[in-house]
Amino acid sequence: MAHFEQWAGFKGKEWVNSVDVRSFIQENYTPYEGDESFLEGPTEATDILWSKLQELQKEERAKGGVLDMETEVVSGLTAYGPGYISEETKDLEKVVGLQTDKPLKRAFMPYGGIKMAEQACTTYGYQPSEKLHEIFTKYHKTHNQGVFDIYTPEMKKARHNKIITGLPDTYGRGRIVGDYRRVALYGIDFLIERKQYDFERYARHGMKGTDFRLREELADQIKALKEMKEMAAAYGYDISQPAKDAHEAVQWLYFGYLAAIKTQNGAAMSVGRISTFLDIYIERDLKAGKITEKEAQELIDHMVMKFRMVKFARIPSYNELFSGDPTWATLEVGGLGQDGRSMVTKNDYRFLHTLKNMGPSPEPNLTVLYSSRLPENFKKFAALISVETSSIQYENDDVMRPVWGDDYSICCCVSATETGKEMQFFGARANLAKCLLYAINGGIDEKNKVQVAPAYRPITSEYLDFDEVMEKYDAMMEWLSKLYVDTLNMIHYMHDKYYYEAAQMALIDTDVKRSFATGIAGFSHVVDSLCAIKYAKVKAIRDEDGITTDFEIEGDFPRYGNDDDRADDMAVWLLKTFMHKLNKCHTYRNSVPTTSILTITSNVVYGKATGSLPDGRKAGEPLSPGANPSYGAEKNGLLASLNSVAKLPYELALDGISNTQTISPSALGHTDDERKENLARVMDGYFDQGAHHLNVNVFGTDKLIDAMEHPEKPEYANFTIRVSGYAVKFIDLTREQQLDVIARTCHDHM
Amino acid sequence: MAHFEQWAGFKGKEWVNSVDVRSFIQENYTPYEGDESFLEGPTEATDILWSKLQELQKEERAKGGVLDMETEVVSGLTAYGPGYISEETKDLEKVVGLQTDKPLKRAFMPYGGIKMAEQACTTYGYQPSEKLHEIFTKYHKTHNQGVFDIYTPEMKKARHNKIITGLPDTYGRGRIVGDYRRVALYGIDFLIERKQYDFERYARHGMKGTDFRLREELADQIKALKEMKEMAAAYGYDISQPAKDAHEAVQWLYFGYLAAIKTQNGAAMSVGRISTFLDIYIERDLKAGKITEKEAQELIDHMVMKFRMVKFARIPSYNELFSGDPTWATLEVGGLGQDGRSMVTKNDYRFLHTLKNMGPSPEPNLTVLYSSRLPENFKKFAALISVETSSIQYENDDVMRPVWGDDYSICCCVSATETGKEMQFFGARANLAKCLLYAINGGIDEKNKVQVAPAYRPITSEYLDFDEVMEKYDAMMEWLSKLYVDTLNMIHYMHDKYYYEAAQMALIDTDVKRSFATGIAGFSHVVDSLCAIKYAKVKAIRDEDGITTDFEIEGDFPRYGNDDDRADDMAVWLLKTFMHKLNKCHTYRNSVPTTSILTITSNVVYGKATGSLPDGRKAGEPLSPGANPSYGAEKNGLLASLNSVAKLPYELALDGISNTQTISPSALGHTDDERKENLARVMDGYFDQGAHHLNVNVFGTDKLIDAMEHPEKPEYANFTIRVSGYAVKFIDLTREQQLDVIARTCHDHM
Repeated sequence: MAHFEQWAGFKGKEWVNSVDVRSFIQENYTPYEGDESFLEGPTEATDILWSKLQELQKEERAKGGVLDMETEVVSGLTAYGPGYISEETKDLEKVVGLQTDKPLKRAFMPYGGIKMAEQACTTYGYQPSEKLHEIFTKYHKTHNQGVFDIYTPEMKKARHNKIITGLPDTYGRGRIVGDYRRVALYGIDFLIERKQYDFERYARHGMKGTDFRLREELADQIKALKEMKEMAAAYGYDISQPAKDAHEAVQWLYFGYLAAIKTQNGAAMSVGRISTFLDIYIERDLKAGKITEKEAQELIDHMVMKFRMVKFARIPSYNELFSGDPTWATLEVGGLGQDGRSMVTKNDYRFLHTLKNMGPSPEPNLTVLYSSRLPENFKKFAALISVETSSIQYENDDVMRPVWGDDYSICCCVSATETGKEMQFFGARANLAKCLLYAINGGIDEKNKVQVAPAYRPITSEYLDFDEVMEKYDAMMEWLSKLYVDTLNMIHYMHDKYYYEAAQMALIDTDVKRSFATGIAGFSHVVDSLCAIKYAKVKAIRDEDGITTDFEIEGDFPRYGNDDDRADDMAVWLLKTFMHKLNKCHTYRNSVPTTSILTITSNVVYGKATGSLPDGRKAGEPLSPGANPSYGAEKNGLLASLNSVAKLPYELALDGISNTQTISPSALGHTDDERKENLARVMDGYFDQGAHHLNVNVFGTDKLIDAMEHPEKPEYANFTIRVSGYAVKFIDLTREQQLDVIARTCHDHM
Repeated sequence: MAHFEQWAGFKGKEWVNSVDVRSFIQENYTPYEGDESFLEGPTEATDILWSKLQELQKEERAKGGVLDMETEVVSGLTAYGPGYISEETKDLEKVVGLQTDKPLKRAFMPYGGIKMAEQACTTYGYQPSEKLHEIFTKYHKTHNQGVFDIYTPEMKKARHNKIITGLPDTYGRGRIVGDYRRVALYGIDFLIERKQYDFERYARHGMKGTDFRLREELADQIKALKEMKEMAAAYGYDISQPAKDAHEAVQWLYFGYLAAIKTQNGAAMSVGRISTFLDIYIERDLKAGKITEKEAQELIDHMVMKFRMVKFARIPSYNELFSGDPTWATLEVGGLGQDGRSMVTKNDYRFLHTLKNMGPSPEPNLTVLYSSRLPENFKKFAALISVETSSIQYENDDVMRPVWGDDYSICCCVSATETGKEMQFFGARANLAKCLLYAINGGIDEKNKVQVAPAYRPITSEYLDFDEVMEKYDAMMEWLSKLYVDTLNMIHYMHDKYYYEAAQMALIDTDVKRSFATGIAGFSHVVDSLCAIKYAKVKAIRDEDGITTDFEIEGDFPRYGNDDDRADDMAVWLLKTFMHKLNKCHTYRNSVPTTSILTITSNVVYGKATGSLPDGRKAGEPLSPGANPSYGAEKNGLLASLNSVAKLPYELALDGISNTQTISPSALGHTDDERKENLARVMDGYFDQGAHHLNVNVFGTDKLIDAMEHPEKPEYANFTIRVSGYAVKFIDLTREQQLDVIARTCHDHM
């Protein structure tokens, strides 16, 4: 049983006896029911640092998106000495620590794949190091090489033809949230001691390969913990012991996160649920008179500034998928405890308030864990922030809490994992819309005209018969689900082997639970297509080779997004059928398969690779993102659309159901007060039905068009919008994606 | 079904339909029953090259054992351009290919362990490369680091106190014999095609980690095969197609072996059973008049010269264990086929004849697969070579053939594996003599006075009670066998992960069988000690801490090595008990556990680490090597000693039972003719009883003493003796080992 003087004043026993941050939080946090009036504006230091950073961001944009890049040093915990936003202002930084030696400079990360790391350099005019090329081709295999060494020809073909797509086989898989709070609460030495205990605890007679893998992972974790101490020491901090006050708690926690982003370049590198935890330290210091509210806000502002600076070196094809340089530094506020108490603290206000103190920003990806039972004041404050900044998203705490408990973190856009107890194998997406076309064409790709799936019998009738389509679609989904899971199993095996997340897993329990995340692309189009075939008449248009390349629809049919059970039941059927097929497969390390309906901005690229569909969507047009209804399908207003999405049962898509809506300000009311009230009511209704997620944008299409045409206007410099799963500066999107966003439904009535 | 013009004149179908060298041999070889009169002496080229090489060997010895060493280049298939014995004589070399760019220059091989690789350099005054140090500590983990990352504290302690010893955890495990003949018979392209077929064949839905490992291994094998072609191309040869004649067959086969010794530094890097195979090519060329006997012998001489040149960079502690720079380039002649035909060909004579053409040599480790049914001429010729050179060993083909078929290779000293169908996980030895002392002392090490084994109750009586000793010994062996196997499992897991033998496994079937070799040290001493306790009175002498450190024996007792069933039954009991305990353990990759009684020259080092034993052997004295009776125990002459060893059932020690005997020339007869006759009769009798192995030395103790005192005499330059499991130049042994060899029984009567 540990005892540290740094814990003076903290209550509870369970978290003292073993690593248990959740119990520490529950025993010590102070719920806050008041309003935002206590909040403080930015300090002078914050203003100075933030304007420095904005200059750098401007410079970065002027240079084509990348300010600076490393080519000679492989990123690692101790690869660099200390770095600051600028030398002159370094004493102003309350929270220190950069990924490299300079702000916004992108690190060289070859372990996921040397080719991508090098291509990222050359794309932006940097010359990759010959020495590192030799090392990572001749001596050390990368994750990417490992995967391509063992892929089957079928997998390569499916990947190339993009029926399976966005796979994390060229860089880090991401989506693992270390419990960075542990660094603050326990200090590194205690964490090392516990991991060493596990190392001994797991020794037994008759150990096998999987045991050896775990032992080696533990050895690597312990090494990473030791290096974290070195990394912090370079900044003048000794993190071997617990944090003694709010300032140290923020700094220690950030060092934990910094370790993650120095060693891994996953698409999503989330921060996790840190707000209520940090509030405990701030409250203790506030009560003891050691800190003022101004200073507390400054700590949070400076920490958030660091989260806004996270960067990775990416390649063009990556940027097409995930536009606007997102890092998914996702961070949660809100939520309820298992005991029914609100977990909202003053700190949850402080994090949202950073969007005012430093203006809107896509990162960190601020997420409100929503429940109609949250304090009214907080719900309205969050709604107001949405109305003003369109920068935050909402997820239903009432559906997630029963599954993940009350200490889960969002590990990417919308996917929950229990903090410090769980990790996720990220698995991108299967294109179920393309799968429908494969079912119709007997496995031949409609774009590339090659046999990709098994040569099942194609549909040859002029008009599509619903029963025949369903039978063939079922068989094709069966093939796809197996191939998809087999492919992901290989990826995760090789990732563990060549790019293991030692620094993050060091902050997660050794008995970790693993989820195996899959995803669906083209969801609404399949639903609408099947409805068209069932309720209208769909004629197949075939090319000279007999391949169906287009469709003619005669008559009307129900569409998903209108609260019409005929379409919405089809949506539930599709989700359930695919999920059940996934459930039949063996998943790596006995992980639990889940799925998501979530495509991020990749809906544009996925759409390009997908032929015309029986719902009327033409070849090459963007797919509808996430679980959103198809563009133009929604005819009955915002609430009907929300009702359709809310019918999808969360338990069938535990990795998340992403819904992005844009509401015209006028539809919400005439004043911000009216708007925040109305938005909170809309969300109460939506989430009380069991819906999972909502991205809220409050602006009109006019503003988007103006921003596209006049990106130079100062008011658009930080104009942030929510896209499927994250926020992005609108002017950072490609024109194609801007047009896609503009094409999406903007609800001008409820 | 493949067809190559290079196969013209060869018979049979099975080996054409799939890779099956054994079937090719059986269908095509020409048994030879004649005598040695057809043999030819060395060609001028052979004499020139061999004298060049002898000069280099002299220079090497003058430089302290190492002629030259690489420090900047990591050894690999294509790490060097071509190299020759000397530039001036390169056109004389009928068989080309060096491990590095210069003869006898030792390669830098860090994958097994960077520390050992570097220590080898510094030991001989070479400065290891800083760049390579960085690569193999920072970027690429080595086998050695992997193992030490996951060892349990108990394993480290057992290893440090040498109850488990000689483990291959700092360099290559060796003992894998690629089927190098495949390169000659099929050419590389066909072999790549077959491996690619396997790669596809093994793809299925639901693959797991072990499947992925196999797929990656296959990918690495295919890469290695491609690099072998590059390696050969540097010497001007295209080995993509089968060898078209004897010269190419020898050269192609050697390239296969060269690939192994360029990439792996296992203690044992055996050549395998190549003699009969190559004879088929030579016979075809002889018949076609394309080659003369003189040229045939030259090919074999030149190939053997290359085997005599194999070198690895070693460290002092390694050299203490395996003295005299052995490489176990083991190569077999003789044996019978499953159909009862002798497999002796003219080529078997040619290989033995190299010991005359170029004088005695420890390498290649020439091994006669013996049966009393071998042609008389051949048996006598082999015996004559033994009498003249003491350079060859004998193994019982009649006990091995039923287990391993008629195409096995010896993969180290004495251990058989089916060629191209099997690999071995080498596991060194458990010191069962020390284990007996642990049983007596309750798990406390008698030398280091620390608790190593579990703290079982020690023996506290003044006189040792046989039943009590047996009960406690059984429990201690149970502990040791489990710990030993667990340790080896870790070693082999990490070896596969960080130092996989891609080039060798590329020449072995994908459906490989695996044996898991363990070994016993101190065998005869345990047997004699237990006999002393049972049949005499043994008093324990304890130190001030109550630890038994010596014994007093009152009365006589039977000893192993005298054909006395009382002792010999105890020997069988010991072997069976230990083997059965091993059988209870899970072994890595579902390998089949085996054991050996085989200690090589490490008996001296093992003895140093072992306290006094109840059989009268004093602390620090060498253990008796292999399955040999203890020094001085044999009282009833050679035949009685051989009878004792022959009683050990081979099926309980499938990894081999090594027996080394020295016979005074006079004991065998007055002329070489008499001696060869008598030696053949001795071996007929010994092996017909089911004994496994015999090292035959024919010289007197006087000669050994003279050689020790006057190593500079020219007749001792190549004076070779058989020690436990290999041959060695006597003057290359340390003085301590020379004294040990001198102390061994030299039989002066039958």
